[in-house]
Amino acid sequence: MARIVMKFGGTSMAGIERIRNVAARVKREVEAGNQVAVVVSAMAGETDRLVGFCREASSLYDPREYDVVVSAGEQITSGLLAITLQAMGVPARSWLGWQLPIHTDSAFAKARIGTIDTDALDRSLDAGEVAVIPGFQGVAEDNRVTTLGRGGSDTSAVAVAAAMKAERCDIYTDVDGVYTTDPRIVPRARKLSKVTYEEMLELASVGAKVLQTRSVGLAMKEQVRVRVLSSFDDARDEDGHRGTLIVGEEEIDDMERQLITGIAHDKNEAKITLVAVPDRPGSVGAIFAPLADAGINVDMIVQNIAHATAGNAASTDVTFTVPAADLPRSLDVLDKARGDIGFEKLVHDTRVAKISVVGVGMRSHAGVASTMFQTLGARGINILAITTSEIKVSVLIEEDYTELAVRVLHTAYGLDAEAA
Amino acid sequence: MARIVMKFGGTSMAGIERIRNVAARVKREVEAGNQVAVVVSAMAGETDRLVGFCREASSLYDPREYDVVVSAGEQITSGLLAITLQAMGVPARSWLGWQLPIHTDSAFAKARIGTIDTDALDRSLDAGEVAVIPGFQGVAEDNRVTTLGRGGSDTSAVAVAAAMKAERCDIYTDVDGVYTTDPRIVPRARKLSKVTYEEMLELASVGAKVLQTRSVGLAMKEQVRVRVLSSFDDARDEDGHRGTLIVGEEEIDDMERQLITGIAHDKNEAKITLVAVPDRPGSVGAIFAPLADAGINVDMIVQNIAHATAGNAASTDVTFTVPAADLPRSLDVLDKARGDIGFEKLVHDTRVAKISVVGVGMRSHAGVASTMFQTLGARGINILAITTSEIKVSVLIEEDYTELAVRVLHTAYGLDAEAA
Repeated sequence: MARIVMKFGGTSMAGIERIRNVAARVKREVEAGNQVAVVVSAMAGETDRLVGFCREASSLYDPREYDVVVSAGEQITSGLLAITLQAMGVPARSWLGWQLPIHTDSAFAKARIGTIDTDALDRSLDAGEVAVIPGFQGVAEDNRVTTLGRGGSDTSAVAVAAAMKAERCDIYTDVDGVYTTDPRIVPRARKLSKVTYEEMLELASVGAKVLQTRSVGLAMKEQVRVRVLSSFDDARDEDGHRGTLIVGEEEIDDMERQLITGIAHDKNEAKITLVAVPDRPGSVGAIFAPLADAGINVDMIVQNIAHATAGNAASTDVTFTVPAADLPRSLDVLDKARGDIGFEKLVHDTRVAKISVVGVGMRSHAGVASTMFQTLGARGINILAITTSEIKVSVLIEEDYTELAVRVLHTAYGLDAEAA
Repeated sequence: MARIVMKFGGTSMAGIERIRNVAARVKREVEAGNQVAVVVSAMAGETDRLVGFCREASSLYDPREYDVVVSAGEQITSGLLAITLQAMGVPARSWLGWQLPIHTDSAFAKARIGTIDTDALDRSLDAGEVAVIPGFQGVAEDNRVTTLGRGGSDTSAVAVAAAMKAERCDIYTDVDGVYTTDPRIVPRARKLSKVTYEEMLELASVGAKVLQTRSVGLAMKEQVRVRVLSSFDDARDEDGHRGTLIVGEEEIDDMERQLITGIAHDKNEAKITLVAVPDRPGSVGAIFAPLADAGINVDMIVQNIAHATAGNAASTDVTFTVPAADLPRSLDVLDKARGDIGFEKLVHDTRVAKISVVGVGMRSHAGVASTMFQTLGARGINILAITTSEIKVSVLIEEDYTELAVRVLHTAYGLDAEAA
């Protein structure tokens, strides 16, 4: 008998008809002999409605009360799924965040899960009940309701899977898996049957929005095998599998391993250039320290070579990217630090995109980066910045070239599916 | 410094604009130096929406899961009112049923409140916070969510008022108080400034639907002074009071005491007549025992004098009323018991109404009933059944005469307000 976690998103839970579809899927797993915990999101649109109420009540709402309000959405769908399962003859009960409990820290509205008590859960599963658990919520030490931040239900599912030592955590969503790239840009993108945690983290954090990044990090840490699959479509691969399995590198054998797993793009970055920063010790620290203090993540950094002009001390231009949402705050922080840094001019540009080539295989293969630069160069695409990690090469380009870049790279790395 | 409870119904909580109006009323009480707990209903329509989901999921829903679903409505408004109060500079926090906790029995979907822990509540109130408490919900011994049944928020408010030893429990609703009768029938009905618990119980249970009956019973038992008033209208009486105060008899002095306090009507009764029941010992027991076993409340009973006809043993007709909603089940129960009872025919009629004259004053005054019979008789209104209690005389009449009966009785007992 295996234990599994099934997680259903808001689109899958939108209305009783869809909840019946979910219950039918759960029933199938139970009849296959599994012990099942189901983690559910609120009905699509419900969390937005509740967040809207909070904002209308006060733009500076107390996050502790916000959590009381918005956690209601998942509470509702938990009870409804339990009722629906029972109506289909499947014993089931809901367990709210405070009932299990799912302990979190006290960072209300963006809490992190600590431990999950499994005594009651184990007893319930062993008694043959399906446990229905609202995603996104927990309880802080002072007994107040917490939520995990938007998209937190994926993280709840992985945390529950880790706590109950589940064999697998199936994330049902409105896509049928993880693709080599965005199929809206490249129709010949291929669904991946397996991907490593590390690759998924890079793909998720740079734009392939299938799973919440934090949930992938937790799955990697806790070694939870995650599968992403569609709750609306039962199509299987040639090899009989559904969806995409996200696992440790050791679970992917050499035959399956690709040099490059996927191409991601992200238009949510903004480029900032400080023109003519004096070339003296500490000047770079003077730029990035205040940004870090403000909690702004700086991603790609390019520092030009210092140049001295007639009559002036040596100076340099410093370019870097920040999340586009943090741009106004970044400019404000830098402007206030102008005295310390001593730049001449502050230039920014949001019409940029980050294109990333991701693959565990590149660790053992040189030439991945140069293929990228040559491929883009051959199409006249200018590279504004570069950053690399062990399994990723990212470049910043002008936003208008995003789709072209993704397509030519997808072909260059041999990722295109055979024509049907 | 006084402690008070303020309770707001669904119409008062329907949307952020109205919640601001509620918060402004709460703020006024805080600024007057009171310690305040607020008990709130769900937004108007929300509980119906949630109940609808449960019914759609299964007509035989598990009441434990139903409670998880429907309790969300009050959870949402609690958080929103706390946010709104804070935005107005009034320290406030929400306390969910399981957080205080409000202990109830395990009769899910119709639970009864046991004790309410006040340690945390006392600390919060003493620290100057407004406590916002969702009505209608509690927690059972096994740590599962319970609800009190529709309209249960009034009962929550009274229970909280008793637990925190509040000086007063103000129930804000969409009417400005309790009237001598339904103002839609008698435009010259007068608002009562005071009414006793006993009178309110009779008025509420026979049709003046201002307060949930159970909340009035609890207020009487716990000696909680309850006031019913409008959350939309600040009009005051000539003597400067707002709303209607519901108190013990000792709080109403002789000057204020009326012979008759009000006239109520109730169209939700059904009349059943068993024709030709054999007049032998035990036959009446054979009628009412199976109804009691089925949980059906029999109200008015009339037994005709036994009559023997040529060639037949003595027999009698037995007439009684049950709640109209229980009529089909009652007929079914009686039909199955026909062998034991031995009646000839089963006749029923839902086109009847119960008219009640209520007043503590009638204890010390004879003639109330005869005034009622004469007044109705003078208008040709036939009395089908009569029942009396210490402070009430009720008659059953044909439904078509309801409004006429209420009007003529209102005048006969001197309850009409002076023309404006």
